[in-house]
Amino acid sequence: MGEVVKLAHGAGSVETSQILESLIFSKIEERLKKVEGGLGIDFPDDAAAIPMGDGRFLVVTVDSYTVNPPFFPGGDIGVLAASGSINDVLMLGGKPIALMDAIIVEEGFPLEDLRRIVDSMLRVLREEGVALIGGDFKVMPKGQIDKIAIATVGIGIADRLIVDRPQPGDKIVVSGYLGDHGAAILARQIGIIDEGSGGGLVSDVKPLTRLMLPLVEKYGPHIHAARDPTRGGLAMALNDWAKASGTVIIVEESAIPIRPQVAYYANMLGIDPLALASEGAAVLSVSPDVAEEVVEFMKKLGFDNAAIIGEVRKAERYRGYVLLKTVVGGLRILEAPRGDLVPRIC
Amino acid sequence: MGEVVKLAHGAGSVETSQILESLIFSKIEERLKKVEGGLGIDFPDDAAAIPMGDGRFLVVTVDSYTVNPPFFPGGDIGVLAASGSINDVLMLGGKPIALMDAIIVEEGFPLEDLRRIVDSMLRVLREEGVALIGGDFKVMPKGQIDKIAIATVGIGIADRLIVDRPQPGDKIVVSGYLGDHGAAILARQIGIIDEGSGGGLVSDVKPLTRLMLPLVEKYGPHIHAARDPTRGGLAMALNDWAKASGTVIIVEESAIPIRPQVAYYANMLGIDPLALASEGAAVLSVSPDVAEEVVEFMKKLGFDNAAIIGEVRKAERYRGYVLLKTVVGGLRILEAPRGDLVPRIC
Ligand SMILES: Nc1ncnc2c1ncn2[C@@H]1O[C@H](COP(=O)(O)OP(=O)(O)OP(=O)(O)O)[C@@H](O)[C@H]1O
Ligand SMILES: Nc1ncnc2c1ncn2[C@@H]1O[C@H](COP(=O)(O)OP(=O)(O)OP(=O)(O)O)[C@@H](O)[C@H]1O
Ligand SMILES: [Mg+2]
Ligand SMILES: [Mg+2]
Ligand SMILES: [Mg+2]
Ligand SMILES: [Mg+2]
Ligand SMILES: [Mg+2]
Ligand SMILES: [Mg+2]
Repeated sequence: MGEVVKLAHGAGSVETSQILESLIFSKIEERLKKVEGGLGIDFPDDAAAIPMGDGRFLVVTVDSYTVNPPFFPGGDIGVLAASGSINDVLMLGGKPIALMDAIIVEEGFPLEDLRRIVDSMLRVLREEGVALIGGDFKVMPKGQIDKIAIATVGIGIADRLIVDRPQPGDKIVVSGYLGDHGAAILARQIGIIDEGSGGGLVSDVKPLTRLMLPLVEKYGPHIHAARDPTRGGLAMALNDWAKASGTVIIVEESAIPIRPQVAYYANMLGIDPLALASEGAAVLSVSPDVAEEVVEFMKKLGFDNAAIIGEVRKAERYRGYVLLKTVVGGLRILEAPRGDLVPRIC
Repeated sequence: MGEVVKLAHGAGSVETSQILESLIFSKIEERLKKVEGGLGIDFPDDAAAIPMGDGRFLVVTVDSYTVNPPFFPGGDIGVLAASGSINDVLMLGGKPIALMDAIIVEEGFPLEDLRRIVDSMLRVLREEGVALIGGDFKVMPKGQIDKIAIATVGIGIADRLIVDRPQPGDKIVVSGYLGDHGAAILARQIGIIDEGSGGGLVSDVKPLTRLMLPLVEKYGPHIHAARDPTRGGLAMALNDWAKASGTVIIVEESAIPIRPQVAYYANMLGIDPLALASEGAAVLSVSPDVAEEVVEFMKKLGFDNAAIIGEVRKAERYRGYVLLKTVVGGLRILEAPRGDLVPRIC
């Protein structure tokens, strides 16, 4: 039998990059990787951009959401699908203006649950003032899809794109606790010690509009890279950056905001919490001269646990690597995640 | 037990309109149904539009493709996913410039098959000069999705939108044979007399760029409505138009181009061929003074079976209805399809 698709191919890990490269990126001519003057898969980032002709860019992104279970502590697939695509628009420097949703649902799925999911999605849109301008609706026969999957298209407009190019000297800033979403889903999927309380593991899923729009407005040109650390977590985001920019990124383990229960649970399972997905957090690479100010500004916006967690350096020996200064004082390579922690996290 | 999602909800039938209305359209404020100055779910059409500020519109559409089997006579899910979204952009008057794809694939799916599917998609893009600017890739555990589903986002630019508003006096024009795709998939799913030849049932799946761009260029203002008769077929498209415009549409059965084998097969199964999906056909509502010319022009473009099949009339008694002049001379109401012919047609 020939090779087959593996769970790891969809984990947002090294294997995901490899299959995308092999199936898609290497197969398409450079001129068809973007719209002239815009951004596409010539430089894979959170979203794509198309020039509008007046200096502004249209920002577009798509993601499929397959999270299992569809209802989880802190949210549901509706909130996730709306927030995730809104966040990818924001991470490219866009102001989200519209969403489209393509729903695939299993025959026999309770209409009441579908209604709750759609209502969650609409609630996010209403709160964000984002329009729902279209979508699609398909049903698959019972047993041919497990419950529901939703693809959302996020659309926004950017005066200036944040194309991820961390610069030597930059500080790495995170907006708050990392790994909450991944831990919460993991706990639901494989079980947890304290089922009742959910072990205090709650998804952080939320749109980051009220963080990113003021930040971009105030510090736009100082933000050299922005990403939401979803599949593959912080570990994947930083490795992508180090590799693409040919720098080395050094991170202070003790400075990374991780909730004790997330660290505890990840530890118990032998999983690196830095590879766990967040769905309501941002990682930024920011000019050193404004980094402290940016953190203070984030705190004022309600992101109390924002922190500088590391910095970007010109690479000599560790070009393209991420190094972690551990709590006990050592220095280890923080590798890009491999394999699959848990499927259907988002 | 409460109500559940049924196959018919996804068939592009009356039930689809009902569930969309109940779950989504009725739940969202008017101002959030579109981007100011554009087109959204305030007026459900093939795609949505966002004003670019210079008189032009950005046209965006999304569809999920779940066709079963993924390889079928005349194409595969890759060709279908690329062509379908390209066609929805065209039907709103847009020139397709970019595509995004979100793939969900089942663990264990042969990599070779996935490669063939992606190659098919890329081939369409290459032939059409449409860029692939982004996407998403997820894997679901074995048994949780049947093989593969792909959502594609079509993006284009329109100088002038074709917002479906058929006008009394208009002629209804089709670009060629109808129902080929539906018949081909149906035959594969439920079996056919002559398995070997496929009974001559071959999908018509293809992008309609070389039809629509010249047509819009030459006859733009005379084309009052354009739709690709996918799920629900011609019957659904015309019923939507009659209802939305408060007209009556009268169609000459003998003028509708249907291949004998499609008619034969549909008849045998007791299915109305006019409700079968096409994936490479267009239905237009065109000013009467240019209708003949438009058909000739289509033929010159290689659409040999283009034909005028009916007309739009100011409604007196049958406001909102579609009437079919049958071959034997009678007049019957052509209703919007109900229920589900066959799931996973597209
Ligand atoms: N889940 C949804 N959310 C918002 N709008 C939707 C949703 N599903 C469908 N719509 C809107 O309803 C209209 C009809 O959708 P439909 O999918 O039938 O059109 P289509 O894509 O042209 O047809 P097909 O899906 O058969 O190719 C479109 O305007 C579409 O944007
Ligand atoms: N099927 C695909 N076709 C084309 N480009 C793709 C495809 N899958 C991913 N990409 C591109 O690869 C890059 C990384 O995709 P990825 O899905 O990891 O980003 P993301 O959406 O920000 O993360 P997540 O999916 O975890 O939310 C993006 O630029 C994306 O557009
Ligand atoms: Mg992202
Ligand atoms: Mg994403
Ligand atoms: Mg659709
Ligand atoms: Mg359509
Ligand atoms: Mg469509
Ligand atoms: Mg993605």
